[in-house]
Parts: sequence; structure tokens; C-alpha cells
Amino acid sequence: LAVPLDNTSFLVTGGSGFLGQYCLRHLAKQFPVVHAVSRNRDGKAADGVIWHRADLRVFGAAEALIARLRPSHLLHLAWVATPDTYRNSPENIDWLEASLALIRAFGQHGGRRFVGIGSSAEYGLTDSPCIEDVTPIRPVTIYGKCKAALFSASDAYAKRFGFSAAWGRVFLLFGPGDPPQRLFPSLVAALSARRPIMVTDGRQIRDLIYAADAADLLLRLLANADAEGAYNVATGRGIAVRDAIEWVADELDARQLLQVGAMPRRTDEPLSLVADMSKVARVLDWRAPTSLKSGLQEVLASLGHGNASPMREGGRDSCVS
Amino acid sequence: LAVPLDNTSFLVTGGSGFLGQYCLRHLAKQFPVVHAVSRNRDGKAADGVIWHRADLRVFGAAEALIARLRPSHLLHLAWVATPDTYRNSPENIDWLEASLALIRAFGQHGGRRFVGIGSSAEYGLTDSPCIEDVTPIRPVTIYGKCKAALFSASDAYAKRFGFSAAWGRVFLLFGPGDPPQRLFPSLVAALSARRPIMVTDGRQIRDLIYAADAADLLLRLLANADAEGAYNVATGRGIAVRDAIEWVADELDARQLLQVGAMPRRTDEPLSLVADMSKVARVLDWRAPTSLKSGLQEVLASLGHGNASPMREGGRDSCVS
Repeated sequence: LAVPLDNTSFLVTGGSGFLGQYCLRHLAKQFPVVHAVSRNRDGKAADGVIWHRADLRVFGAAEALIARLRPSHLLHLAWVATPDTYRNSPENIDWLEASLALIRAFGQHGGRRFVGIGSSAEYGLTDSPCIEDVTPIRPVTIYGKCKAALFSASDAYAKRFGFSAAWGRVFLLFGPGDPPQRLFPSLVAALSARRPIMVTDGRQIRDLIYAADAADLLLRLLANADAEGAYNVATGRGIAVRDAIEWVADELDARQLLQVGAMPRRTDEPLSLVADMSKVARVLDWRAPTSLKSGLQEVLASLGHGNASPMREGGRDSCVS
Repeated sequence: LAVPLDNTSFLVTGGSGFLGQYCLRHLAKQFPVVHAVSRNRDGKAADGVIWHRADLRVFGAAEALIARLRPSHLLHLAWVATPDTYRNSPENIDWLEASLALIRAFGQHGGRRFVGIGSSAEYGLTDSPCIEDVTPIRPVTIYGKCKAALFSASDAYAKRFGFSAAWGRVFLLFGPGDPPQRLFPSLVAALSARRPIMVTDGRQIRDLIYAADAADLLLRLLANADAEGAYNVATGRGIAVRDAIEWVADELDARQLLQVGAMPRRTDEPLSLVADMSKVARVLDWRAPTSLKSGLQEVLASLGHGNASPMREGGRDSCVS
């Protein structure tokens, strides 16, 4: 990453989360000192990562942390992330408020570059590819509404305090270390135990991005202070969820255990949710390097099935302990 | 207004402001008890308006007020409004944070209907008519960014706490009582003193809405709890600012005092900024009743020039003391 090192220090919030671990590992490979904050537990020890324990939702906690560390670069990943229920959890509101306090403190203490994490849930229920500055922002979930609010607010704070800000709208993340309740880990767990598993009809088209690739794009964004505003964090390739599910089932020789269509599809998401990646390609010269199949192969390998692709970093050692 | 009266109580913030005075007068005509809060000074005494003095930006002030009054309906107008400098004032950030505290308290204390005030400044720099749920939200000023953030956030709080919320995006307000530094009052002041006045080339096309009409639409929105989301508060008619300026100058027989083109136009606003009013017409069956000329006639009359139109309420007695 092309970040000048003088007076540069990094703070990552949500560093013990799924995406946070990838970001931290990538950052710590390149910079001597990276600070990370987590509310739950100490994050995984990694060379060069200094952990701080704080619940940013507690009044004054963000201000105290920022005043002490005075980071020049802030990657703000922390948020409620409980699978499924996060969508309309009241905790989204707490995280919106906590985030504003964090970003204000960052601006007041000389912060220079902020990257926040949004979501494809900020877009409206459109089936067309989502274009950052064109597709209407019409979220239906509390999560999407709070993320959309934070995007606009962080932009305002940036202009107010004179730092530069960007926003990564993450689509459907997957990869080794994915929480066990989420689609692929729960699928692999059921099928490898030879239990039948109910899934939707899988007709929904999604843009699945490998977590290590998402981290790579986010860090590129963090390093590129000229890139402001919203950027999709995705591949630009839509695939039918059913195809991915069946591919995994076939790898486990368990397609007959899939009860396709036994679960209803979500009604608060469009049939197709795919990113347009031309802004990312144009501004950051970036394309997601990992194909869906090699990503899924890594997921299977991390869960004890098959071998990780030898060409790729990650794999087994990426698994959350 | 078709609001059931049982357990209904109104709170208006920013009630001593330009738009607030119109809203309060309209509300107080129809309901026995209307609460108003102002930070600066007591608002104008009016039958049925109970004034509370509080600075909502002070930590805990909003919560204390809401806990005491427990309003069922909240019309939130308060914001930084200093002519010109409000656009990039740091106070926008304070008002965003104060507004979130207010809306959270409103939700926690059983509020049922919220209407907040946004702005045409939330839209991007497009010259096409602004359509609420279609035109991209890409504000360039801190003001526009904070308003856009508050719109999304209020929507999230509404869903979290179970109240209904709408958002009025106000275009260019004018009318008797307009602060003296703003376009028409300063124009009339200069021309009637026979002083030359520098103006822009006036080629910008704007959607000017008479303040009493804006108040009428906002109260209709407040009463209509089924109407959620954003609504333009405008006329749908674009006029060249130069035409309005010259009309006023002609009424004062002072066109030769206009130094047209001596001031640069703002670069952070599009050439044309006009609302599409089809959503308002469809959902609220509303059209702005006052023509630009009769509105400007009222402005002139309120400043001591000519007579107010006999068909219209307002006029001289609407003037801020």
C-alpha cells in the first residue's frame, strides 16, 4: 500500500470480526504498528497488532480511545453483526450513534483518512446492477437505513473536520472464518454430518465476494485518500445462490440432502443484488482476484474438506479459532 | 387537518424561525394545545401556543423536554439557519447530533408521528426536476450531507421505535417574515432606499415556495401518518431568479439600480433546482396555492410597499417583529 509512513497510525474497529480479521492480517503485514479495538474479547494475536478493549457504544469510550491513540487512519468495521437478526436489531441505532461519536473524535484529534463499511442493503429493492452514485438509496431494514445515514454523516464530518472519507458497500461476504450460522458453514456442517438441510429455491442472484478480496479492496481504499464517497465492495458477477449451494453439495457428494425450496426467500431483498464495479475499476484499478469456485474450495478446505488451492494464500490458517 | 384529538399533542421545534412561525400559526388555529420550543428567545405569543425554552444541542435537553411533554406529534424544524454561512457551518454537525437525541427520546416516550425538514440541498448537482425516490442524493454542502443523514436516521429510528415518519425537502422559501439578509428583503431594502444593489446574472432556475404554502404542506404531512418517506416542499414550477428580481424592481420603479451579473452565482448549486411534485399530488392531493407574483406582492406589502392581496391571509401581520 502506498501510504507514507510518517505520522501514520492505523486503528481498526471491529477487528475481531469476520472481515476485521482479514483486514488486520493484511494491514499488519505491511505496517509496523496497527491498533485494533474489540468489545468482546481479545482478538487473535498477530504480529504488529496492538489490541485495545473497549465498547464504543459506552458514552465517552470512543473519545477516550481516539484521544489516546490519535490515529491518522481509521477503518471502522464495528457494528452489530448477529446473523439474520442484525437486519432489524435495535442495536443498529446504538451503533449509528456510537459511530458518530467515534468519527467526531477522529476528526477532532487530527484524523486524516476514514473508511467506513456500508452494505448493499443501502440500495433500494432494484434488480439492476447497483451503481454507487446513481442507484437510489432506499433501504428497507433498520440496518440499511442506519448504514445509509452513517455514510452521509461521515461525509459531513469529513468536510467539517477536513479529513478524507470513503465508504465501502459490502455485498455478500464469504470465506474461511465465516460465522458458523451463515450459509456456507451451516451447509457444510449439515451435509458433512449427512443431515438433510432446508434451503430456499436459490433463484436469488447475488454478488459473492471472497472475504480476503474484500479486505484487499478496503485497504486499497484506506490507502487512497483521493478516493472519496461510496465504493461497492463486490465482484460485479452475479450468480444464482442455488448454483453455489449445489456446487458445495456436489463436492460433498450430498446433493440429495438439499431440500431446495423448503425455506422461503427473504422478502426484504431483491431477487438480484449485484454490484456495478466500474467505479472501483476506474478509480482504484481493482478487480476481485478470487473466483467463486476457488473461494468455495478454500471454505471447504478450512472446514476440513479437500485441499486449499496451493496458489492462494488463506485457506486453513484463515479459520477463526 | 384530520388528526384524531385523543392523546394527541404537538411539539414544534424551531418554532421561532421563519418557517416555524407559519407552522405554529396554522397549527394553533386548529388545535387547542401546541407546544413550541426555542433556544434564542420566546417566540411570538399566539393563542394556544405554549413556549418552552431549551437549547436542544445541550446534552440531555431534548430527553428532558420530551420526557416532560410526551408529544404524540413532532415537527422538527430547528437547525442552524444563518443565511449563507449555514451551508458549511460546523453547527450542522451539532444539529445532526441534537436531532438524533431528540428523535430517539421521541420514540422512547411513545411518539407516534414525526415530520422532519430536509432540503433541496440533499439532491446532487442535477438540472433535472428532483424526484424524491429517484434523483440521487449527493449533497455537496455540510448542510445537505447532515440533512441527508438525518433523513435516513429518522427513518431508522421510526422503524426501531414503531412511529411513522416523513421528511419534507424544502426548496427556496420566501414570504413575509423572511430574515432581512435574504434575497427579497435585502433587495427591497436597497431599492427602496434608492441604493444600487449587486445581484447575480439571475439565470439560475429555482422553485420558490411561499412560506405559508410550505407550512400548509408540512402540516398536511404531519396529519397524514400514512405518508412516509421524503416529500418535496415546493411548487414544481421553475422560474429564473432574474425574472423575480426584475419584477420586484419594477414594482419599486428601480430596475436601473440592479447591477445584474455583478455577483458570481454559487458554484455549489445546479443551474436549475426544481422539484417534481407528482408524489405530493398523488399521495397528499396538494398543489401550492399561491402564485409567485401574489407571494411577492405580499412580501412587498409586508415591507411597506403596496397592498397585500385582499384574497390572501398573511401579509403585513405575518411580518416578524
